[in-house]
Amino acid sequence: MKTRQVVLQRRPVGLPKVEDFAVREADVPEPGEGEVLVGNVCMSVDPYMRGRMVDRKSYAAPFQMDEALTGGAIGKVLQSNDPDLPEGAYVDSHYGWREAFVAKGSRLRPLGELQAPASAYLGVLGMPGMTAYVGLLDVGSLQEGETVFVSGAAGAVGSAVGQIAKIKGCTAIGSAGSAEKVRHLTQDLGFDHAFDYHDGHLERHIRAGAPDGVDVYFDNVGGDHLQAALNCMRPGGRLPLCGAIAQYNATAPVPGPNNLAIAIGMGLTLKGFIVSSFEHLRADFIRDMTAWVTSGRMQYRETVFDGLEKAPEAFIGLFTGANTGKMVVNL
Amino acid sequence: MKTRQVVLQRRPVGLPKVEDFAVREADVPEPGEGEVLVGNVCMSVDPYMRGRMVDRKSYAAPFQMDEALTGGAIGKVLQSNDPDLPEGAYVDSHYGWREAFVAKGSRLRPLGELQAPASAYLGVLGMPGMTAYVGLLDVGSLQEGETVFVSGAAGAVGSAVGQIAKIKGCTAIGSAGSAEKVRHLTQDLGFDHAFDYHDGHLERHIRAGAPDGVDVYFDNVGGDHLQAALNCMRPGGRLPLCGAIAQYNATAPVPGPNNLAIAIGMGLTLKGFIVSSFEHLRADFIRDMTAWVTSGRMQYRETVFDGLEKAPEAFIGLFTGANTGKMVVNL
Repeated sequence: MKTRQVVLQRRPVGLPKVEDFAVREADVPEPGEGEVLVGNVCMSVDPYMRGRMVDRKSYAAPFQMDEALTGGAIGKVLQSNDPDLPEGAYVDSHYGWREAFVAKGSRLRPLGELQAPASAYLGVLGMPGMTAYVGLLDVGSLQEGETVFVSGAAGAVGSAVGQIAKIKGCTAIGSAGSAEKVRHLTQDLGFDHAFDYHDGHLERHIRAGAPDGVDVYFDNVGGDHLQAALNCMRPGGRLPLCGAIAQYNATAPVPGPNNLAIAIGMGLTLKGFIVSSFEHLRADFIRDMTAWVTSGRMQYRETVFDGLEKAPEAFIGLFTGANTGKMVVNL
Repeated sequence: MKTRQVVLQRRPVGLPKVEDFAVREADVPEPGEGEVLVGNVCMSVDPYMRGRMVDRKSYAAPFQMDEALTGGAIGKVLQSNDPDLPEGAYVDSHYGWREAFVAKGSRLRPLGELQAPASAYLGVLGMPGMTAYVGLLDVGSLQEGETVFVSGAAGAVGSAVGQIAKIKGCTAIGSAGSAEKVRHLTQDLGFDHAFDYHDGHLERHIRAGAPDGVDVYFDNVGGDHLQAALNCMRPGGRLPLCGAIAQYNATAPVPGPNNLAIAIGMGLTLKGFIVSSFEHLRADFIRDMTAWVTSGRMQYRETVFDGLEKAPEAFIGLFTGANTGKMVVNL
């Protein structure tokens, strides 16, 4: 059997280009003892993948040239030598960027009976949803009645952050990159205040939504957003550092916030985190988020591209504001 | 009765000048009901005071022009209308920068029987010592066997940080501003590794002392020190942000660390703090630090200026590297 898979054929410099990627054909072996053959239903593209396209040491190893990229994917078991994973079972895996693969069943996470469309397990019920959940509630120690500001609020993580804040009885403020996204945040998702960051008056917009200051700033963006947020924090504020999409494509070091010393007098905590360090909270996340999604308290939107060959375009779109909610590639 | 006191006669721009200050004479009233007359024995100058010389909102109100400056001082009760504070009692107060004052006894902290020379209560047994103690053990959550890097290590706070680390069974690395200070850290205070930061190779020096990385970076300096330390942290590292002396005299905003995004993948926590938020740990601090000082496990050094008129020069010396250990003005 053959599969198609996406490889890097050139390391991107700055904003990635479609030509940095290539679709290649590869063999899929027969599943051996304890292995299963999986056909991917949909795959994820996420901003963190940009860091792995650079050849440097980080928390995740760099992607190798001409090898299949990896990332989250939801697939269906087509052929099984693992009694725990019958044919037809849905699994969550890191074998994205390809249409089919063979792997040990023990390396896959079975999803059980789906509570939502498969693609939701790439977003609100998957890694981005769990990132929002642990980042806001555990890293950010959110308390009822507090004020939350989240950047990249129309993205997969940000839109969950704002809605969890509302579910927890907090005020939610979000920044996004277009008037349509801003409308979506306040009209559809229940944000108390949202704004388009393009006019540059970040601090004024944050203060408009948080006249008494921000307790938790959930940072997906870094750069000017982090600097503006630091100026608007309340004493004892927490800043979960989740992403820095503003600088993922930078070709030279980007100066940090020039007001970090505010953290001293205000007793602020900036705490970087990656979701994989919070597996101990997965059961809590699945329980709460599934309940919120099935009851309709948690809305989610997807921006969908069709076909493996569109995956590079979908990935690049993360940096140009092409997505509202989770960016998904259907396979 | 008259006292002499130091006032600001001009707001400093950049590095303060002696001419920004003036010594003025003022009346000291008779102590009323519940009040005491105190003669100051010695007073403190501290880097944080620089921030209060700027007319902007911060955690401490700005100093007003032509009014006596305030700051830590140790004094002796000369005349008392407070039965809890007999004549001859030593008190810790914020009425520094003057030779004598009258205040409610309830606003002063009695020191009881001195366990060390009075000036030690401005340093290792006072605010800087407690800053080191709570910053390293509570904010920094130091664990036995970890590696600590502290900048400004020959200062009042830094020299206590390194020695507490050693007492707690940790490795201590420090940066300082001269070869003599570096010698003092390793020869007298027991630091495992120390270096003069002037050659600029901060990261190389840190790694020389911490080949496996740093668990706790205690930041007194900010700027290039913070940036270099971020590159040397171990996963889960903590960075208590205590001071940013490198930029206290800056006349324009100073760019922050260009590598703050490292905190995300490494799960680092940067936590600003001021010692006044940790009064609940004062009893622990007094108990532990008094034992360490009286047993000789905690060394301390002072740089002493004599006479109130020398206080501005002593203060300015904090920013030019004039002090090893606590900068004290004897009155």
